[in-house]
Amino acid sequence: MKNPAQLENLRIVLVRTRNPLNIGAAARAMSNFGAFHLRVVTPYEKAFREAVSAVGAAPLLARAEERDSVAEATRDCCLVIGTTAIGHRELQHEVYSLEEAAQKIRKATASGRVAILFGSEKTGLSNEDLSHCHWLLRIPTRDEHRSMNLAQAVAIVVYEISRGAVTTKTKNKLSSNAADMESVNRIAQALLEALHISGYIHRRSAATAEEKLRRMLRRFELSSADAEVLLGMLRKVLRKLKSR
Amino acid sequence: MKNPAQLENLRIVLVRTRNPLNIGAAARAMSNFGAFHLRVVTPYEKAFREAVSAVGAAPLLARAEERDSVAEATRDCCLVIGTTAIGHRELQHEVYSLEEAAQKIRKATASGRVAILFGSEKTGLSNEDLSHCHWLLRIPTRDEHRSMNLAQAVAIVVYEISRGAVTTKTKNKLSSNAADMESVNRIAQALLEALHISGYIHRRSAATAEEKLRRMLRRFELSSADAEVLLGMLRKVLRKLKSR
Repeated sequence: MKNPAQLENLRIVLVRTRNPLNIGAAARAMSNFGAFHLRVVTPYEKAFREAVSAVGAAPLLARAEERDSVAEATRDCCLVIGTTAIGHRELQHEVYSLEEAAQKIRKATASGRVAILFGSEKTGLSNEDLSHCHWLLRIPTRDEHRSMNLAQAVAIVVYEISRGAVTTKTKNKLSSNAADMESVNRIAQALLEALHISGYIHRRSAATAEEKLRRMLRRFELSSADAEVLLGMLRKVLRKLKSR
Repeated sequence: MKNPAQLENLRIVLVRTRNPLNIGAAARAMSNFGAFHLRVVTPYEKAFREAVSAVGAAPLLARAEERDSVAEATRDCCLVIGTTAIGHRELQHEVYSLEEAAQKIRKATASGRVAILFGSEKTGLSNEDLSHCHWLLRIPTRDEHRSMNLAQAVAIVVYEISRGAVTTKTKNKLSSNAADMESVNRIAQALLEALHISGYIHRRSAATAEEKLRRMLRRFELSSADAEVLLGMLRKVLRKLKSR
């Protein structure tokens, strides 16, 4: 279902992450979308593998690679991308929106490894970190509240990159059989009878009421199953109304 | 930059969330992407507003609305969507991928309020919760690791809905206003009462019947005009049934 070749060449690199829970949460999101290669550069808590527990992320975390520097963590990559919450102030690099960036990344992973760097929760990526980057990507958050949770940022980036790789086939065709007009008319008849007995429909307005009713029932686009249920209900109500 | 009108009509509804930190994290992601309306249904920790602190999310949390039931939380919404990690097992509802769903949601928010429900971390949405939903949305995670972190799921959903907010110009005005959930629920109530009196519904099967009925009414996608007519009919029938 996924195209493993594309995500197989992706390296998510967490730089100086402070909270090991964020590493676990990022790992979980990566696993959700089929990106399995995590690298961490000098996290605050060295024992992050044991310290964190995120549902389903254990295998990915166990295989995470620890590196001493961004240079080490990106050594085998052909393209290195920094993530930033900052907008156009960044004059040193080109900044692409996530959507554009994801297209470029998918293309690049076809022929080589691509690293995406995420900085620490407090300070983001340093100038030194950015000096390893070819260009930057920005998730389009509001100007008034740009700063994202680290693991949510990873989740959205990996989701966006994986989107092209998935074939959306999740739609569940259940509209089944549409009710035939005979069933719809039977429902209309039963309903009309009930409305006559109840006094909802007056003799002089009967024709209009019937028309309106039929049109409404048509709009519902009843399935044959729904039609059967409705008719059953109406008949029961009718019997009660008539038993007076 | 964003089109506030679209996200203004969005209600993110967290149902029975266990961990208040997840409420805070979800709120932060919502704020990042300009979705400001959060509703919580019976969270485990009542004092979630004080218990959580997520960067920049305080104003949004302070305005979050607490509700006692899904019915209450969706009362003023015309379209209610459930989120699920389950794929094809869900036979009661149509399931759309997030991308398709986001298009439909953007369209619907042009003319009325839309609620998106997120279930608890452990169990997701219950069948009762789902009976309030028109259809379901699934984030395209891997089959082998479907279950996402709650706040990450909220982040990705809001990100995807907000993405079109800039460029989507092809808004077709919905011909008629959809009925809000309060009207639909009133219809369900009246119909249930009629079916009880008529003996269609037996005491032991009442809960299932109610769920089925709600689901069926949801499928009809009633307009507000239709809802009014239907309710008028049912009330008249009810009065007659009771007058025996």
